[in-house]
Amino acid sequence: MQSNSTHRAVLCSYQHLTACEVLSVPLSFATNMRFKFPLMAIVLEIAMIVLFALFVEYEMDQTILQQLNITESADMGKVLELYPLFQDVHVMIFVGFGFLMTFLKKYGFSSVGINLLIAALGLQWGTVVQGILHSQGKKISIGIKNIINADFSTATVLISFGAVLGKTSPTQMLIMTIIEIAVFAGNEYLVGEIFKASDIGASMTIHAFGAYFGLAVAGILYRSGLRRGHKNEESTYYSDLFAMIGTLFLWMFWPSFNSAIAEPGDKQSRAIVNTYFSLAACVVTAFAFSSLVEQRGKLNMVHIQNATLAGGVAVGTCADMAIHPFGSMTIGSIAGLVAVIGYKFLTPLFTTKLRIHDTCGVHNLHGLPGIIGGLAGIAAVALGASNTSVAMQAAALCSSIGTAVVGGLITGLILKLPFWGQPSDQDCYDDSVYWEVPT
Amino acid sequence: MQSNSTHRAVLCSYQHLTACEVLSVPLSFATNMRFKFPLMAIVLEIAMIVLFALFVEYEMDQTILQQLNITESADMGKVLELYPLFQDVHVMIFVGFGFLMTFLKKYGFSSVGINLLIAALGLQWGTVVQGILHSQGKKISIGIKNIINADFSTATVLISFGAVLGKTSPTQMLIMTIIEIAVFAGNEYLVGEIFKASDIGASMTIHAFGAYFGLAVAGILYRSGLRRGHKNEESTYYSDLFAMIGTLFLWMFWPSFNSAIAEPGDKQSRAIVNTYFSLAACVVTAFAFSSLVEQRGKLNMVHIQNATLAGGVAVGTCADMAIHPFGSMTIGSIAGLVAVIGYKFLTPLFTTKLRIHDTCGVHNLHGLPGIIGGLAGIAAVALGASNTSVAMQAAALCSSIGTAVVGGLITGLILKLPFWGQPSDQDCYDDSVYWEVPT
Amino acid sequence: MQSNSTHRAVLCSYQHLTACEVLSVPLSFATNMRFKFPLMAIVLEIAMIVLFALFVEYEMDQTILQQLNITESADMGKVLELYPLFQDVHVMIFVGFGFLMTFLKKYGFSSVGINLLIAALGLQWGTVVQGILHSQGKKISIGIKNIINADFSTATVLISFGAVLGKTSPTQMLIMTIIEIAVFAGNEYLVGEIFKASDIGASMTIHAFGAYFGLAVAGILYRSGLRRGHKNEESTYYSDLFAMIGTLFLWMFWPSFNSAIAEPGDKQSRAIVNTYFSLAACVVTAFAFSSLVEQRGKLNMVHIQNATLAGGVAVGTCADMAIHPFGSMTIGSIAGLVAVIGYKFLTPLFTTKLRIHDTCGVHNLHGLPGIIGGLAGIAAVALGASNTSVAMQAAALCSSIGTAVVGGLITGLILKLPFWGQPSDQDCYDDSVYWEVPT
Repeated sequence: MQSNSTHRAVLCSYQHLTACEVLSVPLSFATNMRFKFPLMAIVLEIAMIVLFALFVEYEMDQTILQQLNITESADMGKVLELYPLFQDVHVMIFVGFGFLMTFLKKYGFSSVGINLLIAALGLQWGTVVQGILHSQGKKISIGIKNIINADFSTATVLISFGAVLGKTSPTQMLIMTIIEIAVFAGNEYLVGEIFKASDIGASMTIHAFGAYFGLAVAGILYRSGLRRGHKNEESTYYSDLFAMIGTLFLWMFWPSFNSAIAEPGDKQSRAIVNTYFSLAACVVTAFAFSSLVEQRGKLNMVHIQNATLAGGVAVGTCADMAIHPFGSMTIGSIAGLVAVIGYKFLTPLFTTKLRIHDTCGVHNLHGLPGIIGGLAGIAAVALGASNTSVAMQAAALCSSIGTAVVGGLITGLILKLPFWGQPSDQDCYDDSVYWEVPT
Repeated sequence: MQSNSTHRAVLCSYQHLTACEVLSVPLSFATNMRFKFPLMAIVLEIAMIVLFALFVEYEMDQTILQQLNITESADMGKVLELYPLFQDVHVMIFVGFGFLMTFLKKYGFSSVGINLLIAALGLQWGTVVQGILHSQGKKISIGIKNIINADFSTATVLISFGAVLGKTSPTQMLIMTIIEIAVFAGNEYLVGEIFKASDIGASMTIHAFGAYFGLAVAGILYRSGLRRGHKNEESTYYSDLFAMIGTLFLWMFWPSFNSAIAEPGDKQSRAIVNTYFSLAACVVTAFAFSSLVEQRGKLNMVHIQNATLAGGVAVGTCADMAIHPFGSMTIGSIAGLVAVIGYKFLTPLFTTKLRIHDTCGVHNLHGLPGIIGGLAGIAAVALGASNTSVAMQAAALCSSIGTAVVGGLITGLILKLPFWGQPSDQDCYDDSVYWEVPT
Repeated sequence: MQSNSTHRAVLCSYQHLTACEVLSVPLSFATNMRFKFPLMAIVLEIAMIVLFALFVEYEMDQTILQQLNITESADMGKVLELYPLFQDVHVMIFVGFGFLMTFLKKYGFSSVGINLLIAALGLQWGTVVQGILHSQGKKISIGIKNIINADFSTATVLISFGAVLGKTSPTQMLIMTIIEIAVFAGNEYLVGEIFKASDIGASMTIHAFGAYFGLAVAGILYRSGLRRGHKNEESTYYSDLFAMIGTLFLWMFWPSFNSAIAEPGDKQSRAIVNTYFSLAACVVTAFAFSSLVEQRGKLNMVHIQNATLAGGVAVGTCADMAIHPFGSMTIGSIAGLVAVIGYKFLTPLFTTKLRIHDTCGVHNLHGLPGIIGGLAGIAAVALGASNTSVAMQAAALCSSIGTAVVGGLITGLILKLPFWGQPSDQDCYDDSVYWEVPT
């Protein structure tokens, strides 16, 4: 197999010379990743190790505690209590997001593979930047909550990845990971520590943020050559089934996502229950409206894969508030409806009118439902379901979208530089540009 | 992609006019779901929201408890303790059942998609009907046990779905969900509260019940036109691999299914251990007999996908009893053997002689092993492994099968009405009747 | 479907007669499993039931404890605490290892199916042999730790299975399961009880052991006819995606593998954190070096599927030690690099020069990283991160590799006997030899 791929690689290399250098295709589309990509990845990993050596330590080292005559703290006992929730979130990040994006017929390797790369780098970087912001100059002490938050921070990049899926290089995604997580951590600090707003399931700080960041990047990287679509921008029967693996693991474990860092007891319990019922209601309306908007009443796999999840996003901000189970079901129902409408009518408009091409429709799954979540949070606070203030909740929503758009525009401009190995229009949505692909 | 599918939809619509309305194919086979399906789904979801608004509240609201000067109850602290078991059951319901049924070559979207729809609607409805039966006129207070039980209640419909897979419309499945869960909740109340029988892993109340309910429906909906099989009623290499995803997640998490609502401590621990070993033994005998019954000694994927699970079903009733680990292995071994024999010899007989066509062979995986479970429970009680009475265990088994058959027959008659959009014989086992399918 | 397969089976049977008996192909390659395989499987299962009846009981039977006036022990309360870790390990064994090996285009049924068979038999046998070694003549009392360890013991065989994948019969795998687990349990007893070495994540006792055992078997079973490869020894686009399901579930749950039996509190917490970061770092270097070693800088799916996991193996021995998070990231980075180099340069050399053909490259994923783990453990102990002695750690590494090689050589000789139904060279890597396969 090795020799076989090498053989193919040599052939490709030759063909590339013919097609690219010899016929003088612009150098900006030289997609050879050798040296450029490995170098950047290795430098980043070394940087992470150095940052960890300087700033990161284990939470409450027992030996130190013993010297100080302190017995094992209560928090240590909670490690295993929260660990299952962490693992659920972990599955959402790596299997959920990864497989959800495998729906494209020739882009499964990149979807699940680059998703893994982004998240693996991002969780290290997220640990550092979140840690520095929250540790007030002390060493960052790592426990179960930190690794949950590290996973969360990667979700923003994975959402944005969905908006530019198929149109960027792995090198570009390394850059986006570093910038976006830094901006995310800044906004999250603002929302949580300065505004003291409530956003337990991160409708605003992760979902809306990730979506609008990605849309801004996608807007800058717009390719008018792909305005009328691309032959590879479609699914196959099996690629759609692979994507359902992602959908289901996201759907099932969303109650863990919305409750993992909630206050133990009543609030955490409510976050679980509200998310559970919001998602259930969302599935029913997503199916109903998917059928309703199609001429023959047929169900559309794009809606089922994505809109069924909108209830988890939309209930996020107020998941731990006393909104009553029927309240969460109402939020979920509306989210499912809005997401289907978005996929059916908004996404085409975005591509043609706004010159923003959103490959996975993250606006419908994370953007709009994230805003619904923010608004539902404002309403819930207004109705007395939480102690935060309406104004601060509104500020959190605006700040999340604002920093996302600004951060995304700047990131887009950096990614537009012509030496990151981005694919030509023709090579978009095709694994074989960056991967050895079996024939 | 959107415009593409719309384009295809228009073409299909035209073709359908030609083939169906113009050539006056009977209206009963008009499979256009538009309006009919969405309307029913939306009405049902609104009904659920209203029922929840009227009857459902969070378990022990902390604010109220504080006003009453009661500190956090012990039960609240158990939320996170049982939560991992809940999530395992959740995965079984949505990924396990969903993917297990993707073995058909052209019915994967429906299998995993309609499975999601049924379960999402069913868990809401199950919460209400189980809640009303058990709450003695008070508000239903929702905690971790309720959502475990809500998931359980959907399992019955998903089992029955397997019996009629490929031969019904999504609209019919909405109806079956509503009726079957109501009947299930009634029988479960009878078994648990009146007979006070033991059935911790629900061999009788879920597995036997779901199987015989489904077989009764399948009997009523029998299509003599499909007696000699259908060209789409087979698997492909990849569809069989997708089905193994379902098999493995069911297999791995079955100890959680059988122990989730067991009494904490010894009994719960035994339920885990007994199920673990029963399933392991079942795998070995299922492989052995799969090879033994084939001419060339080859393994049959249908057996491996299904019969390996029979040990989880059969040990269900007495999972928490002191039946000794070797006892559970014996039960599992017998179940694996019986299930293979069922698939090989009984299923063909059922189709041709009894005029009951059981697509997934739920009789072999849930019906017979469910009965074995009931009988093993009777034997275990007779041997003193539990405090319930032999007569009540027998009554529970009879009641589960009896109510299932009666409920299934009535449901079948309702589903036979000619306006639920059911597929023509030719269109059976084909996603493209109800789904936009990539070419 | 049944009749269809029977029909096919008859045809195959006829073809086989023509090709095999009639043309007098050596009897050693008669792959008909009927009778031989079922008989062995049934006898083994009966033996397991008898052994369990003689030696195995539930942990701390409550009724006995009550008679002795002892209230529920602390350990019993831990069942649910460790249960989620157990389930994670369970998923790694059955979905992780099973799907990781589905990368071959025509060997998915065997990969995921025989993986299930080996593990189901192995966990029963592992319970008995580990139990007898550790129970000092008393009855083996089964609790959550035993079933975690039973799962662990099967991992060794599944690793070795990877080395011989596609070149052996199910019957041979039953034999290997019985021998390897017995040898494993012996070595593990030596390492843990005699040497008192530390190997919490089993880098030495499971990973290095499983790899070198498998390589020894593969060396004995070497087929010079396949030196230049085999037409079926390659992947397809979808088989590579199925393999990624295995990769991801192994990757995500590895922190559970390395911490499941760690000392509660600080050590267990460190085992989680160290493994989490080691794996993250490993992903980044595996991607970097995968790109670096290919001519066009393209990523190789074999590396991504496997080398990304090497960090979990390599950090195993010292996962619970205070090696600092940056220490674990360094270990992970090195492991990712070494694994890629191994796949690129060592595996081809092994096949051609050493006459050891390692189908899945377990040497690169488990062998070399297992040795790195052992060496890292020695270094960590030398630096004072644990109380065990350097000499005993070194003895543990040598003993693990030594017993593995000797055990593997003996097992290979037994498996080389010509009546185990092994496939002919031409039939290697082909499910249809032992499975009914859809056309």
